[in-house]
Amino acid sequence: MKRQTKISNAVIKRLPRYRRYLRELQKKGIDKISSNEFSNLTGYTASQIRQDLNNFGGFGQQGYGYSVDGLYNEISVILGLDKEYKMVIVGAGNLGQAIANHTYYYKTGFIVCGIFEINPKLIGMKINDIEVMDYDSIVEFVEDNDIDIGIICTTKDAAQEVADKLCFAGVGGLWNFAPVDIETPHHVAVENMHISDSLHSLAYHMNKSQNQEEKK
Amino acid sequence: MKRQTKISNAVIKRLPRYRRYLRELQKKGIDKISSNEFSNLTGYTASQIRQDLNNFGGFGQQGYGYSVDGLYNEISVILGLDKEYKMVIVGAGNLGQAIANHTYYYKTGFIVCGIFEINPKLIGMKINDIEVMDYDSIVEFVEDNDIDIGIICTTKDAAQEVADKLCFAGVGGLWNFAPVDIETPHHVAVENMHISDSLHSLAYHMNKSQNQEEKK
Repeated sequence: MKRQTKISNAVIKRLPRYRRYLRELQKKGIDKISSNEFSNLTGYTASQIRQDLNNFGGFGQQGYGYSVDGLYNEISVILGLDKEYKMVIVGAGNLGQAIANHTYYYKTGFIVCGIFEINPKLIGMKINDIEVMDYDSIVEFVEDNDIDIGIICTTKDAAQEVADKLCFAGVGGLWNFAPVDIETPHHVAVENMHISDSLHSLAYHMNKSQNQEEKK
Repeated sequence: MKRQTKISNAVIKRLPRYRRYLRELQKKGIDKISSNEFSNLTGYTASQIRQDLNNFGGFGQQGYGYSVDGLYNEISVILGLDKEYKMVIVGAGNLGQAIANHTYYYKTGFIVCGIFEINPKLIGMKINDIEVMDYDSIVEFVEDNDIDIGIICTTKDAAQEVADKLCFAGVGGLWNFAPVDIETPHHVAVENMHISDSLHSLAYHMNKSQNQEEKK
């Protein structure tokens, strides 16, 4: 497969979405789809879809469309979802618990192996059969169990220190839910999930809608 | 203030981030910043920052830079964060609880007024002093209390029906955490928070980093 070297982050962000829709088509027993049909489904233009997929060598055949299974599998490989990832969660509050319980992750190769906490009241409890352990033991656990991803569900103030410790212990990626941008060495990937940013975008779009309504 | 009519979603997505950094500068007592300094802080290029802010008429003065307070306040107004939003949460599981507890929202004009649930075991409990109510009463509650935003923390299968009910009851925006894209009438804004999409992007970037490491 021919791949271009520079693929924009915007394209990468759309691939999980394409993949979700392809999964729905698979469930309905649909085995091929044109870029126009896929455009109607996903809300992206057909030309955008073709352009995005051409980044990875393109998968469609002229006059035939895309094979749903083929495209689903290729996107999965591109995203690295054909592999298994071992994860730890830091912070066993509601958010850490919500993520531990989100059974979706277990089905797709993302396995929560341990949850870590500094609050002694939470240490020892079990969330979805996963034990909440003392944060003091995290480096040893990550090293011994070859953990790939650290999920940060701590307060804003603790997040960078937790990130540093996880990087030191050898994780390859951090999924950060604390409301602060964390920094990592260049070889450690980060996704910052700023849920409040999303709420602020919503507020903008609500006001925009209202302004447009008023003008009518 | 002169505003362009078409502002891309990518720009809107960066504004909350700019605002977060400006808030940090305010806390440190810094009252002005050049676009170069702001670039170093946020990781966006100075030209990107200038271009983004020019969408809204621009706020900087040549040779002076940006007023931190001024820019913070202007971005807040643009995003609609100078107003107050009344919200309800649907789904009182871990995710709904995590959001209810996220005290941040109370500080910035986003107020959770009620939480709704179909599970009788959860109805009547209190989360952060907010009562969990029977989902059957949601339309009446939204109408009577002029609720602005509905937060969907249900399963994938229930999400669209909940969205329809909230739109019928008159909310202006939906913040959807269920792992499915929901549809709304054109006057109701939606932000879909697909947390698994973010995990899949992380997997991609981890593999990209590893591939680059191997090539060295």
